[in-house]
Amino acid sequence: MNNKIKWLREKMKMLDMQAMIVSNPVNIRYLTNIVAEGILLITRKENIFLTDGRYIEEVQNVLTIDDEIIVHEFKEYSKDEYENFFMFCENVGFEENYVTYAQYKEYMHKYKANNLQETENIIEKQRMIKDEEEIEKLTKACKITDDCFEYLTKFIKVGQTEKEIALEIEKYFRLNGAEGVSFEPIVASGKNSSKPHAHPTDKKIDLGDVITLDFGCKYEGYCSDMTRTIFVGYIPEEVKKVYDLVLKNQLQTKKELKDGANIKTISKMVENDFKLNGYDFIHALGHGVGLDIHEIPVISSRNDKSLKENMVITNEPGIYIPGKFGVRIEDTVLVGKEASKNLTKSSKEYIIVDKQ
Amino acid sequence: MNNKIKWLREKMKMLDMQAMIVSNPVNIRYLTNIVAEGILLITRKENIFLTDGRYIEEVQNVLTIDDEIIVHEFKEYSKDEYENFFMFCENVGFEENYVTYAQYKEYMHKYKANNLQETENIIEKQRMIKDEEEIEKLTKACKITDDCFEYLTKFIKVGQTEKEIALEIEKYFRLNGAEGVSFEPIVASGKNSSKPHAHPTDKKIDLGDVITLDFGCKYEGYCSDMTRTIFVGYIPEEVKKVYDLVLKNQLQTKKELKDGANIKTISKMVENDFKLNGYDFIHALGHGVGLDIHEIPVISSRNDKSLKENMVITNEPGIYIPGKFGVRIEDTVLVGKEASKNLTKSSKEYIIVDKQ
Repeated sequence: MNNKIKWLREKMKMLDMQAMIVSNPVNIRYLTNIVAEGILLITRKENIFLTDGRYIEEVQNVLTIDDEIIVHEFKEYSKDEYENFFMFCENVGFEENYVTYAQYKEYMHKYKANNLQETENIIEKQRMIKDEEEIEKLTKACKITDDCFEYLTKFIKVGQTEKEIALEIEKYFRLNGAEGVSFEPIVASGKNSSKPHAHPTDKKIDLGDVITLDFGCKYEGYCSDMTRTIFVGYIPEEVKKVYDLVLKNQLQTKKELKDGANIKTISKMVENDFKLNGYDFIHALGHGVGLDIHEIPVISSRNDKSLKENMVITNEPGIYIPGKFGVRIEDTVLVGKEASKNLTKSSKEYIIVDKQ
Repeated sequence: MNNKIKWLREKMKMLDMQAMIVSNPVNIRYLTNIVAEGILLITRKENIFLTDGRYIEEVQNVLTIDDEIIVHEFKEYSKDEYENFFMFCENVGFEENYVTYAQYKEYMHKYKANNLQETENIIEKQRMIKDEEEIEKLTKACKITDDCFEYLTKFIKVGQTEKEIALEIEKYFRLNGAEGVSFEPIVASGKNSSKPHAHPTDKKIDLGDVITLDFGCKYEGYCSDMTRTIFVGYIPEEVKKVYDLVLKNQLQTKKELKDGANIKTISKMVENDFKLNGYDFIHALGHGVGLDIHEIPVISSRNDKSLKENMVITNEPGIYIPGKFGVRIEDTVLVGKEASKNLTKSSKEYIIVDKQ
């Protein structure tokens, strides 16, 4: 059996859970590498992936004998056979944060399972800790992102619109080995940079603008996430001060990120330093990254848990002056035993793009 | 009160439903024009939109006094006040096909509502029939799509990759008045066109290729959907025969689409004609289009219901020869009382793009 399913079965044993229905396609991909519509049944004896006829060939190509996953078409099974999957199971886990109420009722009916049990994100919790293969893919996604940034520093010019730059990011990723973006790129210039979640607009890049570039790609399903704040033509003095403060905190945070570090403490440190300088920190310091762009753990002062080795998270402090400008600097970081490693490696020195 | 909420309240009355929690953001947008995270409570006395502080201003700007929607921040309410929203309600509707099991339990707890009642897509059913304003937006989305196709017939050249063409579609939409694509464009050339849901690849366009272009955009939230199959350099004889058969059925279907027409009968007509000619029809003939790209009704032989005036649906017969090629021709159509109207109007004559 593959390591991830083996791990899941052990965890289930610890929780006295006898079977599980896995419906979230991201969790299915994590456990099996399968990217297809369907459902994974972890029964007492077997691992069964049920899918549609049109996916069978594709799914069989992805799986190896070692996976010990049986693939069948939904329609091969009769009503009675569905009822047999979980016969004699005292309980059957399901993903209460993914499954709709209507699906929940359908599962009860179809599998004759009156003992469906919430699983409290057991798979998502395991997904927090990345294995070697996952780290390789994340590293590759981050490398493509760095290369894209390098390209952008040469591409961006006065007079281009935010939308044009955002499209260029998407194009770069798709033509340079990524599957596409991991989220809609943020290209926020001038005043627009004061909104942390700005959408690209038709505003043209102007001399003296700050530009927040927050973007990432997907490589074999795994996401990257990086933000750089760059300058057009020159660096306004008031922006420089804020930039230096954000960067100081981003570098300090990086030092604190390691196995065993308390998430709340690290986040408080940034909040306090911003407050001392007269600024509020209005969003979380970071989040887990993996097959989803936003995964647990949330890195914020509300999370009193500790970091663990091989988590991959973002480190993204930011300051936003309403109606004026904003500065955010973000890396995707691999948490280590003694120290952490930035997977995105683009320069954080002042970057001034050409004025023409 | 606005017409859509008025309608919903009347429908609720008919169903003896005393209150409703609307969670699906697409349904909230439909009823209120609000595009923001939050939840719409239809209580016995009021319509209340609860949201996050950062959306308040934006939401207030969208609403008018006529809407009779009160906007508040989640955090303004105490535990007791949440429990008051649905006090004395015998039942409270919720969207069982959108709300997760975990949210369902949260609702029960938060609103002290032990009488949550499934609503069987009442809002989605109303969304099937478009009003004048919705038809205007859909017409605009279709117009931009036609213009994009016109542009593509000049843009596409031998040697470009499918991915490059797909990116050009996205770029065209975003720079020409649309919010973006309504779904990932399908650009499937040569053999790839034999897969109805092909993703754009690095395959280069070649002389003699058939290209399936299935694409659409969003305009003020409303989607368009169109497919054209075009030729590169010349039309291979075996493809021409299939093209003519698909087109004949697409035009015939168009004639049948009108208020009162039985969906199953129309779909069967295409299935039968394809079968007579030795081909299987492997997907549905069409689907509703609106704020979502795929809405009810499904236009297939499994749907025994009738069309109604002001439904907007697709008409998309297709034939796929495994390993060789495929042909699909699709319009977005407004169903009328006596006859229907294509909202996408691009030519369906043979279109041969330049070979260089």
